[in-house]
Amino acid sequence: MPTQENLIPLSGWRRKLYIIIYEADTRAGRIFDMALIIAILLSVACVMLESVSSIRQQYGTLLTVLDWTFTILFTIEYTLRLVCVHKPLRYVKSFFGVIDLLSILPLYLGLFIPESRFLADIRILRLLRMFRILKLSRHLGEAAQLRRALLASRRKITVFLVTVILLVIVLGTLMYVIEGPEHGFTSIPISIYWAIVTLTTVGFGDITPKTPLGQALASLVMITGYGIIAVPTGIVSAEIARSVPDPVSSDNRSATRLCPHCFSEGHDWDAQYCKHCGGQLPRPAKGEVS
Amino acid sequence: MPTQENLIPLSGWRRKLYIIIYEADTRAGRIFDMALIIAILLSVACVMLESVSSIRQQYGTLLTVLDWTFTILFTIEYTLRLVCVHKPLRYVKSFFGVIDLLSILPLYLGLFIPESRFLADIRILRLLRMFRILKLSRHLGEAAQLRRALLASRRKITVFLVTVILLVIVLGTLMYVIEGPEHGFTSIPISIYWAIVTLTTVGFGDITPKTPLGQALASLVMITGYGIIAVPTGIVSAEIARSVPDPVSSDNRSATRLCPHCFSEGHDWDAQYCKHCGGQLPRPAKGEVS
Amino acid sequence: MPTQENLIPLSGWRRKLYIIIYEADTRAGRIFDMALIIAILLSVACVMLESVSSIRQQYGTLLTVLDWTFTILFTIEYTLRLVCVHKPLRYVKSFFGVIDLLSILPLYLGLFIPESRFLADIRILRLLRMFRILKLSRHLGEAAQLRRALLASRRKITVFLVTVILLVIVLGTLMYVIEGPEHGFTSIPISIYWAIVTLTTVGFGDITPKTPLGQALASLVMITGYGIIAVPTGIVSAEIARSVPDPVSSDNRSATRLCPHCFSEGHDWDAQYCKHCGGQLPRPAKGEVS
Amino acid sequence: MPTQENLIPLSGWRRKLYIIIYEADTRAGRIFDMALIIAILLSVACVMLESVSSIRQQYGTLLTVLDWTFTILFTIEYTLRLVCVHKPLRYVKSFFGVIDLLSILPLYLGLFIPESRFLADIRILRLLRMFRILKLSRHLGEAAQLRRALLASRRKITVFLVTVILLVIVLGTLMYVIEGPEHGFTSIPISIYWAIVTLTTVGFGDITPKTPLGQALASLVMITGYGIIAVPTGIVSAEIARSVPDPVSSDNRSATRLCPHCFSEGHDWDAQYCKHCGGQLPRPAKGEVS
Repeated sequence: MPTQENLIPLSGWRRKLYIIIYEADTRAGRIFDMALIIAILLSVACVMLESVSSIRQQYGTLLTVLDWTFTILFTIEYTLRLVCVHKPLRYVKSFFGVIDLLSILPLYLGLFIPESRFLADIRILRLLRMFRILKLSRHLGEAAQLRRALLASRRKITVFLVTVILLVIVLGTLMYVIEGPEHGFTSIPISIYWAIVTLTTVGFGDITPKTPLGQALASLVMITGYGIIAVPTGIVSAEIARSVPDPVSSDNRSATRLCPHCFSEGHDWDAQYCKHCGGQLPRPAKGEVS
Repeated sequence: MPTQENLIPLSGWRRKLYIIIYEADTRAGRIFDMALIIAILLSVACVMLESVSSIRQQYGTLLTVLDWTFTILFTIEYTLRLVCVHKPLRYVKSFFGVIDLLSILPLYLGLFIPESRFLADIRILRLLRMFRILKLSRHLGEAAQLRRALLASRRKITVFLVTVILLVIVLGTLMYVIEGPEHGFTSIPISIYWAIVTLTTVGFGDITPKTPLGQALASLVMITGYGIIAVPTGIVSAEIARSVPDPVSSDNRSATRLCPHCFSEGHDWDAQYCKHCGGQLPRPAKGEVS
Repeated sequence: MPTQENLIPLSGWRRKLYIIIYEADTRAGRIFDMALIIAILLSVACVMLESVSSIRQQYGTLLTVLDWTFTILFTIEYTLRLVCVHKPLRYVKSFFGVIDLLSILPLYLGLFIPESRFLADIRILRLLRMFRILKLSRHLGEAAQLRRALLASRRKITVFLVTVILLVIVLGTLMYVIEGPEHGFTSIPISIYWAIVTLTTVGFGDITPKTPLGQALASLVMITGYGIIAVPTGIVSAEIARSVPDPVSSDNRSATRLCPHCFSEGHDWDAQYCKHCGGQLPRPAKGEVS
Repeated sequence: MPTQENLIPLSGWRRKLYIIIYEADTRAGRIFDMALIIAILLSVACVMLESVSSIRQQYGTLLTVLDWTFTILFTIEYTLRLVCVHKPLRYVKSFFGVIDLLSILPLYLGLFIPESRFLADIRILRLLRMFRILKLSRHLGEAAQLRRALLASRRKITVFLVTVILLVIVLGTLMYVIEGPEHGFTSIPISIYWAIVTLTTVGFGDITPKTPLGQALASLVMITGYGIIAVPTGIVSAEIARSVPDPVSSDNRSATRLCPHCFSEGHDWDAQYCKHCGGQLPRPAKGEVS
């Protein structure tokens, strides 16, 4: 949806900020991205260490300070990201916009519900940008190929999953009636949980059948699970064998381009306008690129 | 087997009822189907909640009333399904006829054997009709493709399963002799159950080998199981790669057609007679279709 | 190696006996084979039931009598099989000759080592003849196809297994040094057993890492195991996709033919001489075939 | 990088030693290699037995003596390997050079840190030379094919592994917040360990979810893990199906040739100079080859 506004290029400090924050073609942009990756990794490590009770008791105050420092930095970054684009709401609603917001919310939320502050770890998902930032365009291309293969087989996988879900409900119900609460199958939902644990060959062993009939049915479930794992594998194998690598992705220079209007990726390195929304793509001047 | 009777079309209220209950082309038919799906989901949720002892103690009476309400509704529906077809017995013996009957029996049976009322959950299988009702014809087509791939490899899978069964009997016997009752391998059937748990890589851990020789044999079983899981996967992968999507299924309009005489599916949208039994296919009048 | 002797056809009662015992073309042969399958299944069921202590206490004497009856019957059958072929030693050394012998030995051996009598269950492997006896020639053909695919990939699988074995030895040693006897890793062999349990994704849970370093290494092992399961599957999938069904097996009539000299299978229905050893193949007279 | 020195052939006793130790074409070379394989297997067996406490108590002194004997022998062998090549440092830094060193270090290190002496078991990796020594050139060829297939899919596998790692961090954090320390999820790292155990379908059962919400999320994790195992399998299957066997490897005579300068393998049987570094390949005289 190309609008008049989209055609007006960003200018002044907002344009410079945009190129630093969203693109990775200039020296400043690369430094920013590297610093961001390191900050994300450090802050996730902080949250993890804080969850270990022995470490929390010793370094609790330090870790809390670090947590807040990182969260405030990320909050500033989020604000800057909002400021330097035409339509901030589009960024907020984009995939990475949601993840960026989820990365800073937990600590603020933690003021009210203490446990929820650990959810800040979800900011690790911000690293998904890494492939683009590090110009790993061939990885991006093969990731796109995998995604296409999975998309092409989504209906077969849906059919398979629906079958599996119906199956575990029936099997869980049968096991509940056969084994009963006295052998750990305390309710139908628990029995369905057991059926999933067994059918997927995970087998925790926290609940196990005790009666001969229950063990016979469990054996059937296990052999079924062992057999039907072949189905999704077969589906995906066939799709991947059929698919071809993404030709676009072979060009390394296109990896870091991002539309500031609709936040879509995959633009050619010499594109001037977004192929999805028609908005102008900002480009660092020749001198800025290193 | 086309008979004279099959050629007489259903008429009057029975024809209208048939189109509402069995087909999904008219507005009334779609409303009926949607109501049915919701009723099934609600009733299954009821049975599940009832199995949780804490909920049963608090809402036991309410849930029992709901259970009976749903069962009586499904009984009425079952009777109507019998009434509006030429040959009720064929419906009773068809796949969905059996499931529909199994959906209402448990509660009546529960009057004599209390535990069996939970089997009412099996009615979740009625949702298998969902794909047809929701006109998910492409899903149906790919489901048919999967089914064909599995059918084409059924002999290889039979050979594989027979081999696996003979293998677990031999392995179970060996483990029983090696480990013996004092290490949990209390009988050959239990040892066979252990062999299945291990070979399928489920590994509950309720029974584990304790002697060095037993652990060595178990290691062998595990590596074998790890290796032979490749066989069914390879079989199914090769078949799916070979198969092509079902061309018939690409026509969305044919998804909901069902023969009232032999209950077969997959008729073309403009077919007038069943391609399997020659009986006439009922068709809503132009005005009825929406 | 065709010898003069091979060319002399079996004659008289030995020929008749041979056709009854080894072939399944005549009515008597089919009855014999069916009786044999039933006897094997019953005797295996007997041994299994005997291993259940509660049943053994109640029906011990009956089951012992049945065990001995079946073993004596199988001993007579084994003697007859020896008698009606030219070169009994070749039968003794053939695959099924070994299994037939292993089926009767355990009970006699049980007179000295009581526990070993349960090994009689190994006679279930005699059912591998079933496919041939029941003229399931298409199953035989696809079994042959599977076997060829596995044979064609045997070198890749050997390389894979050697890699896995070296890997589990190294991983087991590392875990023993990291976790040590106080966390259940009592010796290197036990740690290797743990590494196999983990790498194959069985995961009994009888031994689990307790130290952070051990859990980190275990995580690595699990992700490796999850990843390398793809290798055998990929190998076998590729081979099966490449292979074609066995053309010979399409002829149903050839399924039951067996050379009395070298005990090879897979002869054409109209063959007069064994294609492997040149010996004459016995053929029931036209009148005998039903 | 061919240098003048490389072109000077080894001579005298160093040349003879080189042919015995590094090549397997002469009788002396084969005897040396066989003795080495046996010594490695025996010494690994020694270390394993020593780790079993009951055996250590009884035969501790004997095993310690054997350990030191083998380690001194391997130290001498390592010195000889250094002596008879032009550039010892290149050998030290080559793959097998590192493993050879790791094979003798643990026992010397064990004088200071007792537990570390068990790491001597890592010398089992020296058997990786086996395929070359035993002239299993077809195995080498198919191993090379597998390696190429894995290399060709390394980017897809990287993308997959990064996704899995991000996923387990997010899932582990969620489970920590949902279940908490009172149900065994004592910290985020432990919860991530649990997520790996579950996603890879290992399922030890040492930590299991107890709350309904936790079990629901666990079910989701298990079905996801069950589904995404299809991805690496599909990737590898497709690559193996695409790849062709290594043509070079079909020549059996080339299997044992090794460059004394850069320690690369895969030279043709009649090559006179290394195709990688240009150094001269030593060749036993006609009379020496058997």
